[in-house]
Amino acid sequence: MKFTEKLNAVIDDNRSLVCVGLDPEPTSLPVNVSLLKFCSDIIDATSKSVCAYKLNLAFFEAAGDDGMNVLKKVVQRVPENVAVIGDGKRGDIGNTAKAYARSLFDNFGFDAVTVSPYMGHDSLEPFIEYRDKGIFVLCRTSNPGGSDFQNVICQINGGTMPLYQLVAQKVSTWNKYGNLGLVVGATYPEELKTIRTQHTEMPILIPGVGAQGGELSLVLKYGTDRVGRGAIINSSRQIIYASKGADFAEAAGKAAAKLRDEINNLKAASK
Amino acid sequence: MKFTEKLNAVIDDNRSLVCVGLDPEPTSLPVNVSLLKFCSDIIDATSKSVCAYKLNLAFFEAAGDDGMNVLKKVVQRVPENVAVIGDGKRGDIGNTAKAYARSLFDNFGFDAVTVSPYMGHDSLEPFIEYRDKGIFVLCRTSNPGGSDFQNVICQINGGTMPLYQLVAQKVSTWNKYGNLGLVVGATYPEELKTIRTQHTEMPILIPGVGAQGGELSLVLKYGTDRVGRGAIINSSRQIIYASKGADFAEAAGKAAAKLRDEINNLKAASK
Repeated sequence: MKFTEKLNAVIDDNRSLVCVGLDPEPTSLPVNVSLLKFCSDIIDATSKSVCAYKLNLAFFEAAGDDGMNVLKKVVQRVPENVAVIGDGKRGDIGNTAKAYARSLFDNFGFDAVTVSPYMGHDSLEPFIEYRDKGIFVLCRTSNPGGSDFQNVICQINGGTMPLYQLVAQKVSTWNKYGNLGLVVGATYPEELKTIRTQHTEMPILIPGVGAQGGELSLVLKYGTDRVGRGAIINSSRQIIYASKGADFAEAAGKAAAKLRDEINNLKAASK
Repeated sequence: MKFTEKLNAVIDDNRSLVCVGLDPEPTSLPVNVSLLKFCSDIIDATSKSVCAYKLNLAFFEAAGDDGMNVLKKVVQRVPENVAVIGDGKRGDIGNTAKAYARSLFDNFGFDAVTVSPYMGHDSLEPFIEYRDKGIFVLCRTSNPGGSDFQNVICQINGGTMPLYQLVAQKVSTWNKYGNLGLVVGATYPEELKTIRTQHTEMPILIPGVGAQGGELSLVLKYGTDRVGRGAIINSSRQIIYASKGADFAEAAGKAAAKLRDEINNLKAASK
């Protein structure tokens, strides 16, 4: 099954555009709860309310010697019908990109990944060749420093456009198998609007609601496609740290359901 | 000790600008030789002829469940006086970048890393705060697709310049602790010349000689600083696969020494 088919099915089945970002800071876990238990319990408590999980590879790599084994088990814990995104923002020359793609798709079993565009087409090609997987390319990121380069005005074909728009345009031309998407932060709604207007079909992974301050109503208005899907709205800290006590999983479950309902209510109200 | 001091000391002690790239493809290892033994034996056979090793994280991650433990042991195998660069091209928002920096510097023990500039200053800041470590920022990469974005003409302060020059310029302004460097591919000597002319002090990590086809004499002419250091010339496949038989380590040792001598002869001839 193609990634977009899987994604659309779970969006419909769970009536949810919510993606839970699993970015577990070792110092922020509840006392006596292992990384594996923390992630597993949160998945079990939230999986009916979400369309996807985004696993941030940095926090598993930083968890020490066993971190990558835990990562693999966490991927396996996600129910078959829910999408699992490996957030590593990889980007390297061909034979290296091939090794990353093999690792993320074949070994860890991710349905989709995030990648960085800086090294250009041949650095993405090995990922693109996994036709049934999803590849989200960084476009306009949610952090303040994103504007250092992404908003720089570029001269292209006699006209001009900011770099992030050029990235989206190139990604669109490379999308021969329909498996590419973009990452656009919720913190820059005008840029999100521009990208969605220019690229009506590609799914957009949208981090930055919640702790980072992106406004949900604008994200929905500008980020979804014409049938109200196409936006994967990621929230991390607001959900996984909803409680830092023994009830962390239950609290995460409630927070995910609440965000799903907020989104659905906003969608219904705008009809 | 600051990274540049360590680097300069080993360049002088071993009279070498050679960096061996450890990019071990699982399918390319000699029969019955484990990943750990392959890397360890190559290090033992080459460490007197090089200034640095560049360990490509992708190939260790792709080696499966034990890959990251092997990576850590390989870092430890490198003699104390030789620089070890973790080549992962990471780039992410602040708290994630902090986790990557902690993982690479504190857990794995790398002396330096490669990072991607696309997400801007706050994505590099957690690395920069490790003042005694080295941070090499992607500038003009050695692959053909590098030109997709890196050579795009940007409008800056009433003038224009290609994106890779803008990246170098910004990195230079962020270099408050003197721990930043650039990655410029040997396959683009004119760009290397431009970057070295504009940035006389920063060390440049130069992949792309050997298998990728970069010409050594131009790399030396354009890449070194005014005292003949500052260029870390990486060769991977040409050295680590010099022989695919049981004599792989011995052959790697000879190939590394040969490249070192070629470089030193070219340097002597140009004086």
